[in-house]
Amino acid sequence: MPPTISDLPTPCLLLDRPRMERNCRRLRQRIAGLGAALRPHLKTCKSLPAAEIMMAGGDGSATASTLREAEEFAAAGVRDLIYAVGISPQKLDRVARLRAAGVDLAVILDSTEQAEALAARARGGEAPIPALIEIDADGHRAGIRAERREFLLAVARALPPGGLRGVLTHAGDSYHAHGTAALEQAAEQERAAAVTAAGILRSAGFACPVVSVGSTPTAHFARDLTGVTEVRAGVYCFFDLVMAGLGVCTLDDIACTVLATVIGHQPEKGPLGGWTLTDAGWMALSRDRGDGAQGYGLVCDAAGRPYENWLVVETSQEHGVLALRPGTKQPPPRLAVGERVRILPNHICATAAQFDSYYVLDGGTEVIAEWPRFRGW
Amino acid sequence: MPPTISDLPTPCLLLDRPRMERNCRRLRQRIAGLGAALRPHLKTCKSLPAAEIMMAGGDGSATASTLREAEEFAAAGVRDLIYAVGISPQKLDRVARLRAAGVDLAVILDSTEQAEALAARARGGEAPIPALIEIDADGHRAGIRAERREFLLAVARALPPGGLRGVLTHAGDSYHAHGTAALEQAAEQERAAAVTAAGILRSAGFACPVVSVGSTPTAHFARDLTGVTEVRAGVYCFFDLVMAGLGVCTLDDIACTVLATVIGHQPEKGPLGGWTLTDAGWMALSRDRGDGAQGYGLVCDAAGRPYENWLVVETSQEHGVLALRPGTKQPPPRLAVGERVRILPNHICATAAQFDSYYVLDGGTEVIAEWPRFRGW
Repeated sequence: MPPTISDLPTPCLLLDRPRMERNCRRLRQRIAGLGAALRPHLKTCKSLPAAEIMMAGGDGSATASTLREAEEFAAAGVRDLIYAVGISPQKLDRVARLRAAGVDLAVILDSTEQAEALAARARGGEAPIPALIEIDADGHRAGIRAERREFLLAVARALPPGGLRGVLTHAGDSYHAHGTAALEQAAEQERAAAVTAAGILRSAGFACPVVSVGSTPTAHFARDLTGVTEVRAGVYCFFDLVMAGLGVCTLDDIACTVLATVIGHQPEKGPLGGWTLTDAGWMALSRDRGDGAQGYGLVCDAAGRPYENWLVVETSQEHGVLALRPGTKQPPPRLAVGERVRILPNHICATAAQFDSYYVLDGGTEVIAEWPRFRGW
Repeated sequence: MPPTISDLPTPCLLLDRPRMERNCRRLRQRIAGLGAALRPHLKTCKSLPAAEIMMAGGDGSATASTLREAEEFAAAGVRDLIYAVGISPQKLDRVARLRAAGVDLAVILDSTEQAEALAARARGGEAPIPALIEIDADGHRAGIRAERREFLLAVARALPPGGLRGVLTHAGDSYHAHGTAALEQAAEQERAAAVTAAGILRSAGFACPVVSVGSTPTAHFARDLTGVTEVRAGVYCFFDLVMAGLGVCTLDDIACTVLATVIGHQPEKGPLGGWTLTDAGWMALSRDRGDGAQGYGLVCDAAGRPYENWLVVETSQEHGVLALRPGTKQPPPRLAVGERVRILPNHICATAAQFDSYYVLDGGTEVIAEWPRFRGW
């Protein structure tokens, strides 16, 4: 008998492979239809077999959020990477080592200080490390607003000759855009910021071959990618409750769940039906509350069917408290100590990071593989 | 030259060993003065060298929040452990294996179902696994209220003969008790609940040798531990902003910080002084917001001196946004890209769990050791 989820220790992380494959095909086809390349962001999966699914059918390019990711995926053969967090000078030795090993790893930056650090290395005789200038599309985090034309050009000029690879932006505010119109608008704003900045750089004589945009919401709602060469996204491979809340996916698209075991009951506490306690606390689910609408996660039965109104309402380190969603009337199920539930996560990047592997399911409850994850920087 | 924190990759986790040793001595002496034993909870440190400091001067007993912790610390020679999360039947094989290897590992439970699972194993010929009945002192999570005398006795009677080790409670609500009076009251409520339950069991003929209470706040504010045999606490070894907010420690007692590097500036955003971006996002700091008063953490200089009003106000996976605390007027420092800061964590159990090791400091900025951490279940 092959193992099933009943044989797994809890808490653990489950991955439904057919759902993941469907999610990956969906975005790959969508972006190809809009004439851009997809550069999968591997920060969500941090796993070689999962990255292979994300990269299937692509051009071999990928995105990393840490140098550790770049090193791990480079060791597995990935040769075209962007480290998409603003570079600090101390990290350039590791970047240069990967480049010397044949990996086309580019960095991003938004200041003359950073550009001068790259130029200083090039003056020292090193081949220029290619850089993308980070553009701020929506004010949510880092980058240079395309309107700051002179500053943008100053950063480009501070780079070593031949060091400008392009521009990159991330519409992080799209995680707070609700409804089709708002998401389409966030996508267009992201596109326009990057294309405008690239135009400014080209007008000044820079080649700027790459125009890189992306976030999972904007990647799914962009109607036009004119001028964009590539789209980055990560969470689309698994999806989560935040993405479902935005309407980017349905609950049936969410590929990862946390398997938990019932460890007790407190029938006199909380709403109708009381509390059910499980062994999946914040150490398993993470402290991410998502948009606040689903507690620490939505409870499903062991087959993965959501109960809809049964939430993880509170957590401590190794305890999860399940209770009925406030305002609902249908009593929750009474599961015995030892029975299993599955929790849909608010934010899969945070939840998956709490685990060292995925137990992989082929659509049912049989466990067909265990895929290791890595972490660290 | 010995390495200093300037040589470390960021983000990483720093541990000031003299502060940790002082914190551990303080609680050990306090609990000894009240006539009880200290059973350190190793869920916070998850590291053998750190556990040695927590256990120094004690009776060899410790507490675990996962069977993985029990297994790791047992392999290092710890022989007296309580797994202090309600037991599920599936986990009993691992418990029995540790016991067969000579580890006195006890479990906790609060239902007849769980007690019967233990009794069934004993009827099968296995030596009884000792159990403590979990008592609910404050309604915050699991356990049986001492007032539920008949249910308490029913659980005790369902255990295998000789299987009742004692009672255990955890005043989790003390994390929300503000001020000396409230904390002293939480401690007394915790003591009274456990002692009352033990009295009920003893009146019915059960031996109930162990009366175990504890949380870091109540351990520091209990004035009387009459009837209590042992106190469990974990976060006291490192402390954090939540504990400082309760008045259990000062900022100078907090032993762990996250070292981060400045990666950019957004002078036009946020309050006076704008935003400074670092490479310590929620992947490093965790998503724990603590009591909400300190954002995702309080910023210190590279020597560990707090700036007081400079907070991590927002995080994404690998970005931390530093900004002035709302309402303050003294502008924040302007640190160049590449300069280092240290972040005091909200909740060190959650923050430390994001890292695979501690870089250990001897009170200054020299790195004297790297202590591995483990994780998982």
